[in-house]
Amino acid sequence: MITWSSLSVNEKKQALARPAMANSQQLKQTVGEIIARVEAEGDTAVLDYTRRFDCPDLTNLVLSQESIDILAAKVTPEVASAIDTAFDNIKTFHEAQKPSDIALTTTPGVKCELRFTALDTVGLYIPGGSAPLPSTVLMLGVPALVAGCENKLLCTPPNKAQLIAPEIAYAARKCGIDKIYLCGGAQAVAAMALGTDTIPQVDKIFGPGNSFVTEAKQQVSQRADGAAIDMPAGPSEVLVLADEFANPEFVAADLLSQAEHGPDSQAILVSNSATLIEEAKAAVERQLATLSRAEIARPAMENARYILADSIEQAIEASNAYAAEHLIVQIENARDYLPKIKYAGSIFLGPWSPESAGDYASGTNHVLPTYGYAKNYSSLGLLDFMRRYTIQELSEDGMRNLGPAIMALAAAEGLDAHEQAVALRMQALKQGDA
Amino acid sequence: MITWSSLSVNEKKQALARPAMANSQQLKQTVGEIIARVEAEGDTAVLDYTRRFDCPDLTNLVLSQESIDILAAKVTPEVASAIDTAFDNIKTFHEAQKPSDIALTTTPGVKCELRFTALDTVGLYIPGGSAPLPSTVLMLGVPALVAGCENKLLCTPPNKAQLIAPEIAYAARKCGIDKIYLCGGAQAVAAMALGTDTIPQVDKIFGPGNSFVTEAKQQVSQRADGAAIDMPAGPSEVLVLADEFANPEFVAADLLSQAEHGPDSQAILVSNSATLIEEAKAAVERQLATLSRAEIARPAMENARYILADSIEQAIEASNAYAAEHLIVQIENARDYLPKIKYAGSIFLGPWSPESAGDYASGTNHVLPTYGYAKNYSSLGLLDFMRRYTIQELSEDGMRNLGPAIMALAAAEGLDAHEQAVALRMQALKQGDA
Repeated sequence: MITWSSLSVNEKKQALARPAMANSQQLKQTVGEIIARVEAEGDTAVLDYTRRFDCPDLTNLVLSQESIDILAAKVTPEVASAIDTAFDNIKTFHEAQKPSDIALTTTPGVKCELRFTALDTVGLYIPGGSAPLPSTVLMLGVPALVAGCENKLLCTPPNKAQLIAPEIAYAARKCGIDKIYLCGGAQAVAAMALGTDTIPQVDKIFGPGNSFVTEAKQQVSQRADGAAIDMPAGPSEVLVLADEFANPEFVAADLLSQAEHGPDSQAILVSNSATLIEEAKAAVERQLATLSRAEIARPAMENARYILADSIEQAIEASNAYAAEHLIVQIENARDYLPKIKYAGSIFLGPWSPESAGDYASGTNHVLPTYGYAKNYSSLGLLDFMRRYTIQELSEDGMRNLGPAIMALAAAEGLDAHEQAVALRMQALKQGDA
Repeated sequence: MITWSSLSVNEKKQALARPAMANSQQLKQTVGEIIARVEAEGDTAVLDYTRRFDCPDLTNLVLSQESIDILAAKVTPEVASAIDTAFDNIKTFHEAQKPSDIALTTTPGVKCELRFTALDTVGLYIPGGSAPLPSTVLMLGVPALVAGCENKLLCTPPNKAQLIAPEIAYAARKCGIDKIYLCGGAQAVAAMALGTDTIPQVDKIFGPGNSFVTEAKQQVSQRADGAAIDMPAGPSEVLVLADEFANPEFVAADLLSQAEHGPDSQAILVSNSATLIEEAKAAVERQLATLSRAEIARPAMENARYILADSIEQAIEASNAYAAEHLIVQIENARDYLPKIKYAGSIFLGPWSPESAGDYASGTNHVLPTYGYAKNYSSLGLLDFMRRYTIQELSEDGMRNLGPAIMALAAAEGLDAHEQAVALRMQALKQGDA
């Protein structure tokens, strides 16, 4: 247990330090080579990598609509109904985010507009691995659906049977995903960014992944002929703020929810109550004994930090310094403290709002800025699936009214031709010969 | 003159191809070294580079408030008034972009919120060079002001007299910039991204610059301890759509406005009238003879392209394929064609809306996605100076209503502890012992 008030400025930083992210030259180079090969060879390269890493017998990168339907029908009614509930809530929350176009007159005769429009083609990446992630399909697919993106592609690595998890197929169909491609890793990212004969080039790539996927997203986002990406990635993390009224079992369960994501997950408890911290630690040990994923959660919990603050205000100071991806506030009258909370990807208020709620079904998006990016990046939302552009239209009066200011500024900046473009128009207006 | 309908798919791509951007290893390495030195030595490195490149006698990186006031007072009344007009219009247009927070109930007892908040600390980069750019100060400073960013810093290289252009000082003061730092280039970007004793670390860096600045922005945006950036950069460009009713002098002036930005600027005219194209070409030659920046504009115009389309619809097809930063529509009843226009950073409608209007004073932002990025990036706006985060709060009823769905999904994903975090709460609710 670390006592916050006893720490120097540097020790405070240390107490909240995140693990360094692997950034090896080897990874950069390997991913660079995969991207180059996909660029040169297209489908051949994607198919070859997919056979090597995921599915030796794969012959077709496209999962047929028939297969999707067969798979989707295999989902148990209970899980299907849970996906339906989550879908509805996520859709409700993201529909509320629909922006309004703006049109106004700034100077008489000068009309300015801002318009929002959906991105044309988005690529959603869903990792493979031991467990399927239908929730991530919803978190990416629902906003793409609500935004109205014309083409919604999904890439996910196939299993040995050339198929994917039924839950992924079910969730993708709900979101109106147009095509599912059977590939993963850096090769899938490269294919979506650059396009192949089979996989169309996308405007933006969304979704989580392993270090190859993350590195590939970074690399293609740096290319002028590549794609935009959702946000920078980092290991997942939670910070729980709790006072003496918090239920230590709930606190422990929330820390463990984070820890089971992976050994590099971060779990931090900050409390003004030493008793609560001790009780939560004991509860963590008890609960760990019952968890199937204890082997993953235990090493993460060994890096967990328990910070004792003098007061709730001081606890919030630590939380603001950390800028957590997930911030759980199990403090009495939690809502009252919102004005003091500066940074978090998503905030979970009160005892009945575990991280699981937002991860799955409350309606908020679970793609969140981690690794301190909550200070300068946004939680994923509808706007990330749209773009904004502007329009201006000057009438003759608008030109008369604004022309002199434009000319003065162009002259001040030494931009002759800019001045000329207005001068010619002003002259034409004077002569009435436009 | 290129006839669009005679081109193959590949020739069409060629006709609209942008010049390759220099992406030299040498540049990457030099910028990497500058960033590393600023990280290691802080102010000493920034001051040293600034003395070497900009101002041999500089002793203080901060431009004093007194100097700002003295400089601002030197601006001519005409230019001051033009800056005031532009400021007002830009402010009006960006104030209209203020987003609304969202709070709603997705499932009874499940409250979800989306909140917008200003970025804390933003760094605005204003290039130096032969002509001052007060307009860019406004385009970055006004949205930062309207968003309510707590700290607004500006970096710009000093002249030999340890000062900056009066117009920059005047515009910066209008925007409530908190501090002006006398440095430029990669060293200024590194200082803002990483912080020094004098220059605070910023959350996001905005603004144009030369290849060193652009490369430095890319590099710091890739670092977890760096800063976010506004958008990827590329050479500026215009595409003019014109029909036989367009005034060839206006068209020529608009092409030249773009060309005078630099020899790598792109100017493209697409028209369904060969006569208009011939007349515009002749007008370009005539106007070039009178321009002070002809030496810059002429090489750019040598790369200009004149494309003849069979129809306006075909001209718009070419425009959509190009996705111009600036799209000028000098077609009769220009507004009627808006629904067909897919991509552009900013659209200038009708004969009285030259690019200069948006560059300076109409109210729209002149920081726009170029190099084809209009397909997947937005024009700069108020939202770029803000971030979004979410909140969820479940009541006991909310947990009762949503708990089963969360548990089913967690189980489907094999995430035990996520399921447990809900199971424990459901149990507590049943036992009434929360």
